[in-house]
Amino acid sequence: MEPGFGVSIPRLYAYHRALREASAAGKGTITSHGLATLLGETIAPTQIRKDLCALGARGRRGHGYAIKPLSAHLAWVLGLEHDWRVAIAGFGYLGHAFATFLAARERRFDVVAIFDRSPQVIGQEWQGVRVDDIADATRVLRAAACEIAVVAVPAEAAQGVAETLAGAGVRAILNFAPSTLRVHREDGMPVVVRNIDLAGELSILTHRLAVGTMPAVEEA
Amino acid sequence: MEPGFGVSIPRLYAYHRALREASAAGKGTITSHGLATLLGETIAPTQIRKDLCALGARGRRGHGYAIKPLSAHLAWVLGLEHDWRVAIAGFGYLGHAFATFLAARERRFDVVAIFDRSPQVIGQEWQGVRVDDIADATRVLRAAACEIAVVAVPAEAAQGVAETLAGAGVRAILNFAPSTLRVHREDGMPVVVRNIDLAGELSILTHRLAVGTMPAVEEA
Repeated sequence: MEPGFGVSIPRLYAYHRALREASAAGKGTITSHGLATLLGETIAPTQIRKDLCALGARGRRGHGYAIKPLSAHLAWVLGLEHDWRVAIAGFGYLGHAFATFLAARERRFDVVAIFDRSPQVIGQEWQGVRVDDIADATRVLRAAACEIAVVAVPAEAAQGVAETLAGAGVRAILNFAPSTLRVHREDGMPVVVRNIDLAGELSILTHRLAVGTMPAVEEA
Repeated sequence: MEPGFGVSIPRLYAYHRALREASAAGKGTITSHGLATLLGETIAPTQIRKDLCALGARGRRGHGYAIKPLSAHLAWVLGLEHDWRVAIAGFGYLGHAFATFLAARERRFDVVAIFDRSPQVIGQEWQGVRVDDIADATRVLRAAACEIAVVAVPAEAAQGVAETLAGAGVRAILNFAPSTLRVHREDGMPVVVRNIDLAGELSILTHRLAVGTMPAVEEA
C-alpha cells in the first residue's frame, strides 16, 4: 500500500523508531497519545492517527494500535524489510561520520564501498572497507551491486560524482552537497535524490528565533 | 510577516539559495519556472508561487519576481539578516563535519564554542576555537552568548547535554542524535529543537526504491 499524498516519510520513520522502543520495553499495544509521548510531543496525536489511517491502520478506541503488525507494515513501507548496500562518495569528516553512524545504528544499511579523490585518503581502510579512487567507482560499484549512495563531496564536484554513481547502477542518492543534482540512470529513469542542506536545517532554527514563533508541532 | 501554515522553511531556504545564485549570475528578475529550473525541478512552479504568495510576494506575469527585494525578504524570514553564534556539542566526525561545513559555507553562522567529553579531544584547537570539556559548558557559553547549538553526541548523552546547553542560555538546538529531546529554558519556554535523523533520511530513499514510487516533486 502506498501512503497517501501528504504523508511524510520522516514522520513514518519516527513512528517506526518509537514502536521499536515501545516493543523493546515489552508493550504490545500503544495509543496515538502514547506514540506522541515517545516522540517528545513533537507530533500531535491527531497527526499520528491521520498518518497511520492513510496507511490503512486504525487503532481501537481506548486500546490503540497493535505494535507488531503496525511496525511490520511501516518497515515494509519504509523499505526496511530487507538489507541495503550503501556506497559513500567523499570520505571527509561528513562521509566518515555517516559511515560510522550507519554501522553503529542501522544494521539494515551495509556500507560496502567508499570513494574519495584525495591520494591521502585512497587506500585507507574503514571497518574492512578499502577507500577507492572515485575514478574506479564504475568498476567497484558494479561488483558491489550498490543501489544507494551518499554524496558528501564539495558542491562543485557533486554533479559529476552523481553521474558516475548513476552510471554504475546507483538508483538513489542522499546528497549533502549544497547543490541541486539532476541524474538519470542508464535506462533513462531519474535517480531518486534526497537533498540534505545542513545550512537550510539551521535556518529553520534561525527563522524561529528571528520571527519568534514556537509552534508546538515540529515541521517534518 | 509570518509565513502561513504549510510553508516549509527548508523550501524557503532553497529559494533563497537559488535567488543568490541568480543574483550572482547577474539577473535582476526571475520567474517561478526559472526558480524551478535552478532547483533542478525538485519543486514545482505552482508550489513556488504558492509559497512566495504566502509571504506576500507576487511576481509580475511574464516578468517574474524582482530578485533583490524578494531575497532580502526571505533572508529576514529565515533569520539570515544577522549573524548567529553557534556552539557544537560533540566533536567527533559529525561535529567536526558540521563545523567545517559552516565555516566554508555560511559566514552568517560563527562557530564560537566546541565541547566534547573525551580527554583526547578536549584541548584540541579548531580554527582558533578551543575544544572545551562539556562539564564547563555553562561557564563558557554564558561568556560566548551562544543562542544556537548543534548536538552531535551519542543518543544516550543527548538529553543531558541539551539540558546543560539550555541552562547556559541556548535557545535553539539542531539535534543529530537519534533520540527525542525535551528541553526548556530557565524562563520555562521550550527550546526550539530540530531533529535530523540520518537513518530516517535514508529511509526516504529506501521507501522509494522498495515501493517504487518516483514523485516528480521532492518532499521537503
